Amino acid sequence: MNKFKRNERIAAMTQILVNSPNKVFTLTCFTDMFAASKSTISEDLVIVKEIFENQKLGKIETITGAAGGVKYIPIISKEKKKHFVEQLQSELSKPNRRISGGLIYLGDILYDPSYAQQIGSIFAEEFLNRHVDCIVTVETKGIPLALQTAHALNVPLVVFRNTFKADDGPTISIHYPSSSGGSLKTMYAPKNAIYKNSNVLIIDAFMRGGGTLVGMRSLVKELEANVVGTGVLFEEITGREKAVEDYFSIFTIDPRKSSEHVRIQSGILKKSVLE
Amino acid sequence: MNKFKRNERIAAMTQILVNSPNKVFTLTCFTDMFAASKSTISEDLVIVKEIFENQKLGKIETITGAAGGVKYIPIISKEKKKHFVEQLQSELSKPNRRISGGLIYLGDILYDPSYAQQIGSIFAEEFLNRHVDCIVTVETKGIPLALQTAHALNVPLVVFRNTFKADDGPTISIHYPSSSGGSLKTMYAPKNAIYKNSNVLIIDAFMRGGGTLVGMRSLVKELEANVVGTGVLFEEITGREKAVEDYFSIFTIDPRKSSEHVRIQSGILKKSVLE
Repeated sequence: MNKFKRNERIAAMTQILVNSPNKVFTLTCFTDMFAASKSTISEDLVIVKEIFENQKLGKIETITGAAGGVKYIPIISKEKKKHFVEQLQSELSKPNRRISGGLIYLGDILYDPSYAQQIGSIFAEEFLNRHVDCIVTVETKGIPLALQTAHALNVPLVVFRNTFKADDGPTISIHYPSSSGGSLKTMYAPKNAIYKNSNVLIIDAFMRGGGTLVGMRSLVKELEANVVGTGVLFEEITGREKAVEDYFSIFTIDPRKSSEHVRIQSGILKKSVLE
Repeated sequence: MNKFKRNERIAAMTQILVNSPNKVFTLTCFTDMFAASKSTISEDLVIVKEIFENQKLGKIETITGAAGGVKYIPIISKEKKKHFVEQLQSELSKPNRRISGGLIYLGDILYDPSYAQQIGSIFAEEFLNRHVDCIVTVETKGIPLALQTAHALNVPLVVFRNTFKADDGPTISIHYPSSSGGSLKTMYAPKNAIYKNSNVLIIDAFMRGGGTLVGMRSLVKELEANVVGTGVLFEEITGREKAVEDYFSIFTIDPRKSSEHVRIQSGILKKSVLE
């Protein structure tokens, strides 16, 4: 006889799985916790899996074999993505967001914990099958999105910097050309943070010309690792060609359309893993 | 007759609550979702509440009245805190973390998504009853901890900066003295990000003399808001008095003790809300 009831086990396992996305928990971890048999735990997990699919709450994946177990993959339903896109479109179209130089104020959005979590899940879903070993961003505004992408994929985050401080430890640095002008900028990476031949996913908040992304890719190359994907939240339409190809952007911003309204589009609603 | 079984409702509600800590969900939200009565949903929630308490998975809190509902408060059990403290102590004591100038390399720890989540929950628990309206940090290394504290408390994050960029929008800035020397530094805050008279919780990764915290407090004061708490992950023992009083630090680092080993202590195990 089991010490815990089925709905108690289900509540506890759901908390543990949802709290640590993409982390594999062995069945033994749960059989020990609840003094229950593997078949009992498996039956519990089938119930969780089915209701998550039914209610579009993400995916419960069972991994068979020696390194087997179960994990939770956060996937945002198409309805929630639609709501998210509409919410951001309406937020970004507010005239009081326009600042000098045709720019849009994004600070509050980029640092909003709920937006960052949703954006991180969208990036994680997009790059789920790229065997990502770590996330890279460059300070400052992309850090929340990159952190939540790393959290959703259960991999470390490495932050490149434009300055070099005393407590950064040994770094590798490069110069890279700014895509807006001819000036050279500097970017620093912690020397031992990325393993050789590992798979790196680059995440940033904003892309205008793509110069910063070129800099990040060069620095990853210097560390002898591979860039397996690039995700940006906002891509600005500038009329000029971007310095990088092969990237995924959630929003396209065209600030030239009107001085009053910004045109923001998103292609992420076209697809969804759960459909 | 209900469309969903009790254990299905429990799995779905647990996912929704755990995914958005400290966010109040009305019972109506769940009665609509599952075509179930309020009393049925309340009974479901009692089961979740009890197993969470039993297994130390955090707290389910029911709020009565017009603005009532239910929310999940992430609380890390004493056992997990002990494990976290021991893990970090052993990690930080590794000799290869020592860098020039008696400093310790912390980059990988500060950007680790799992550590950041745990640290955020510890800060959130510590300041749960301070009626926090928003979290403030200063770029760069404190951002992940501050973001996860904001996520755990379901409040916005505001990031102060030491530089002023074109897309930062209107800012308020101050000069503040560095506590290590006589030089003046500059700190910028977004002008409209913090409401007048709101309650601000300051979170940072590291405190040596406390000069940066003084700067942050001055800037919050300029914005006519109140500092209701200050949390730092690492406090360094310098032998000199700190420039601030009344703060909560998770770890104390004494790098003077030995050139080989860093002494790291933590007082957070003394108390735990769930006990």
